[in-house]
Amino acid sequence: MAAITFELIHKDAATGARAGILHTPHGKFLTPLFMPVGTQATVKTLSPHEVQNLGAGVILANTYHLFLRPGAELVRKAGGLHKFMNWTHGILTDSGGFQVFSLGDLRKISEDGVTFRSHIDGSEKFLSPEISIATQAALGSDIAMAFDECIPYPADYEYAQTSTERTHRWAERSLNAAINPKQGIFCICQGGMYEDLREFSAKFIGNLDCAGCAVGGLSVGEPKELMYRMLEVSTKFLPENKARYLMGVGTPDHLIEGVLRGIDMFDCVFPTRVARNGMAMVSPETSPRGRLVMKNAEFTEDFSPLEKNCDCYACRNKFTRAYIRHLIRADEIFGLRLLALHNLRYLQRFTANMREAILTDKFTEFREKFFAAYDSGDKS
Amino acid sequence: MAAITFELIHKDAATGARAGILHTPHGKFLTPLFMPVGTQATVKTLSPHEVQNLGAGVILANTYHLFLRPGAELVRKAGGLHKFMNWTHGILTDSGGFQVFSLGDLRKISEDGVTFRSHIDGSEKFLSPEISIATQAALGSDIAMAFDECIPYPADYEYAQTSTERTHRWAERSLNAAINPKQGIFCICQGGMYEDLREFSAKFIGNLDCAGCAVGGLSVGEPKELMYRMLEVSTKFLPENKARYLMGVGTPDHLIEGVLRGIDMFDCVFPTRVARNGMAMVSPETSPRGRLVMKNAEFTEDFSPLEKNCDCYACRNKFTRAYIRHLIRADEIFGLRLLALHNLRYLQRFTANMREAILTDKFTEFREKFFAAYDSGDKS
Repeated sequence: MAAITFELIHKDAATGARAGILHTPHGKFLTPLFMPVGTQATVKTLSPHEVQNLGAGVILANTYHLFLRPGAELVRKAGGLHKFMNWTHGILTDSGGFQVFSLGDLRKISEDGVTFRSHIDGSEKFLSPEISIATQAALGSDIAMAFDECIPYPADYEYAQTSTERTHRWAERSLNAAINPKQGIFCICQGGMYEDLREFSAKFIGNLDCAGCAVGGLSVGEPKELMYRMLEVSTKFLPENKARYLMGVGTPDHLIEGVLRGIDMFDCVFPTRVARNGMAMVSPETSPRGRLVMKNAEFTEDFSPLEKNCDCYACRNKFTRAYIRHLIRADEIFGLRLLALHNLRYLQRFTANMREAILTDKFTEFREKFFAAYDSGDKS
Repeated sequence: MAAITFELIHKDAATGARAGILHTPHGKFLTPLFMPVGTQATVKTLSPHEVQNLGAGVILANTYHLFLRPGAELVRKAGGLHKFMNWTHGILTDSGGFQVFSLGDLRKISEDGVTFRSHIDGSEKFLSPEISIATQAALGSDIAMAFDECIPYPADYEYAQTSTERTHRWAERSLNAAINPKQGIFCICQGGMYEDLREFSAKFIGNLDCAGCAVGGLSVGEPKELMYRMLEVSTKFLPENKARYLMGVGTPDHLIEGVLRGIDMFDCVFPTRVARNGMAMVSPETSPRGRLVMKNAEFTEDFSPLEKNCDCYACRNKFTRAYIRHLIRADEIFGLRLLALHNLRYLQRFTANMREAILTDKFTEFREKFFAAYDSGDKS
């Protein structure tokens, strides 16, 4: 049996939004699912037990970072990434492509792969589909991602077409390089912001013998309507029987719109990154747009929890907004931890609520209720 | 009944080292005890539950920092420091004296108190015995410290004498300012590095009607033999029936030498500060001097825990030296947390072991065994 399979449990009657189960060598996980990001083999500020306790099933680790430090060979010697970082549930590793392409002038692309300079010590390095897959095999993640280019925005048609075709060849090379039978490989469709290229790419990737399909190159600065349109065109042509993963997306509004268009999996640094900037994610009923900036003076003597009825560690234990504001102003790490725990738990609960709405054919109501509150700040 | 009492349980037959129980409004705690430092109402990087789980009974919070931010009045409104930071065991607050005296040119001393500039916004502030005690009463700690001057080293005799006499007057004013019946006040003896002044101060402080006695002004840069001598002179004249607290001391060698000279309580930022510098505290049997610098290349492929048989979160869960080295090199906060948990747990176990040695009249053997291993690095 394949390392990774996807079981479609139910589609919301009105919208087709999907609820399923992702089967991995490290457990079964309910979808829609959000993956916290553990770039350097740790979800920033948190212990693996904390991440597990907040309900996360699969986390994402970055191949680029681990390739450079501590190196995949060290992780392999440690017994693989799960054992190295003490994480017993699922792990998805990205391909490193996104990071090396982000290096701008520090990288050179050829058909073979990408030559780049390490951001740590400036040394010259090379990543290709084969090296990326070998690296991810050594890391021992449950899901490895094919090596691709995330097309920048804006990009002209010719660039998008050339890049998408190369991503397709790299996807095939990635699958051919597979060596770890306990690992499934997801391939990524691209296509820039062009509908015909998105269709072309989704059809191509959808026909490959991969464990799952990802939609890449979105949420890169384009207007959200354009993002939603490109997503729609992509998922339309992806197979029903494989998990669909929208890469790098993690705000609640994007999660709903992704699920509406048939997405099962998400990842994003958003909840942990904004925690480090002192921001709490809350439901739009608590605050339109769902964000509290904890440094604000309004919280000085606010002895209520971040959010009523929240079951995260911070709220459950009655750490107050006033205390968290104090910690953030005083640059205390425990403040970042409380916000990271709260934000990630918020998203875990949010995806679980989406699943429940799908299973009861009430996804439309769920979505409308969310946006009525979310957009209320615009009207007032 | 007084808020704070000390029950002397046993003195080691050969040395007189003390094992006792500190009774506080928030529980009974076994001595010798080490207090982790939670300067700004948080033990750096850790949750209160983690600190409690590692066995800490009393923590120290800094009045200077909390006076400036968030302000004692806010903490009082929050229900006191225990509730504000979610800590259910004991809290000792210092007086703020040490910090304002450390400000150098930014402070002016008068008989009345100290005028200083805030390190946060430069605004002019004033602390006196009365204001310090009122602030600590508002914070609601179990133990408040009298306002004193920690005499710098070196200091000439006249300075030391003048300062010590002022500290005595301030101690009396501190006791007269007491307003919180649920709080005990400890007074601090000084005396610089002069035996006669130490004796004079210990006798004076020992005769005050305070809840406990502290020895201040040590571990300020003087040779350790001088520190031990001054400590000996001080404790000799302190009453047997009150807890004795050696301020700002927290390395294992100093703890042993302090307990040998009749000390019951310690605090120090050492274990959490060196954690943030990537250092693990281990027994001298594991490494002479008891320190591992985790960035060192020797740990690159070291898949053993920080210390065999350690029951801290990091070691119990088999986080390896190689993983912790990776986290520290990558500036990941979880690495600091693992080292803070390990170091503080090491000291909790260390003080518990000292207590056990005292109760069985084996403190001399305990001490000799420790130093034989500790000093073995010097001989090799």
